[in-house]
Amino acid sequence: MKKSFGAKTLVVPTPVWVVGTFDREGRPNAMTAAWGGICCSQPPCIAVSLRKATFTYGNIVARKAFTISVPSETHAREADYIGMVSGKDVDKFAVAGLTPVRSSLVDAPYIEEFPLVVECRLLQTVEIGLHTQFVGEILDVKAEDSVCDEKGYVDIEKVRPILFEPEINTYHGVGKLLGRAFSVGKDIRAGRPR
Amino acid sequence: MKKSFGAKTLVVPTPVWVVGTFDREGRPNAMTAAWGGICCSQPPCIAVSLRKATFTYGNIVARKAFTISVPSETHAREADYIGMVSGKDVDKFAVAGLTPVRSSLVDAPYIEEFPLVVECRLLQTVEIGLHTQFVGEILDVKAEDSVCDEKGYVDIEKVRPILFEPEINTYHGVGKLLGRAFSVGKDIRAGRPR
Repeated sequence: MKKSFGAKTLVVPTPVWVVGTFDREGRPNAMTAAWGGICCSQPPCIAVSLRKATFTYGNIVARKAFTISVPSETHAREADYIGMVSGKDVDKFAVAGLTPVRSSLVDAPYIEEFPLVVECRLLQTVEIGLHTQFVGEILDVKAEDSVCDEKGYVDIEKVRPILFEPEINTYHGVGKLLGRAFSVGKDIRAGRPR
Repeated sequence: MKKSFGAKTLVVPTPVWVVGTFDREGRPNAMTAAWGGICCSQPPCIAVSLRKATFTYGNIVARKAFTISVPSETHAREADYIGMVSGKDVDKFAVAGLTPVRSSLVDAPYIEEFPLVVECRLLQTVEIGLHTQFVGEILDVKAEDSVCDEKGYVDIEKVRPILFEPEINTYHGVGKLLGRAFSVGKDIRAGRPR
């Protein structure tokens, strides 16, 4: 029997991603966002939703570009800090000891220390309500060798991204391998439900 | 040193969610989607992106409603199956042994056996490319008592949602608690980086 929790943003999993932008003076900024996801395969696009009040909002509007840097679980403190303060007030890279890297493809910086980054040019801006959704076309994905498997593919167990639980506000890591997609359900398709 | 992977939908984590709809004859359908995320806090909204070729696409356009049912890791087989076949061809609920429940709030069904569900009315339709993004206003969230903690809050460690890795196509579970959001970064804010 299910009980009702009302109209709220309660769902799992949500990601912990850090959005990188330049401000009008060219200074790098970063903010943490959990309201986002991939939104198109062709062109490859990722969406992230921000409040207009954020410093990053104005940066994306002005520069028409952003990056997503994916923190590993060892960066939970930095990602949390980046979500707590505004780039209007402080240089978060300097305070957190992180290194901004200028993308060669888009007018935005990413975070050197985070293992996986996505570089986006702004494709669409969707006004929804309190949040504005920015749809970015992915121009490149970059990853550290150290988070790739022996075949050279990005390995989620090495990236170790962070999950955000939006009701009680906790961070969790990635757990065990459950199986292969487009495979573990084949038994059911073949008429063999559990 | 990061290496380039090109323009592709490679990021982690992405969710494994099952979108519930009714077709024009009122038959329940379900499809698995990983391209989605929360996209606004007020009104509370969730986005999911689908190809026009899917049966669910037409259902959402016609009914202007959908649900998101969050499978637990014990439902990885069912969620994978639901992502492999089309509701044009088969009654996935019957084949997978799952029970559709008609929402009392929106014109769509959710999955009884999955522990967390989100009921949405269609708010916006965003054409991006191969995928169309449906923005749903969340009218209610429902969860099983069994996935709530002692205070009555939804507990991600009990929901045990599934993560999808879109490059090598694997499913993973949720791992250990890393810390509290808006808390673990306070040391950095106070001038104490690691």
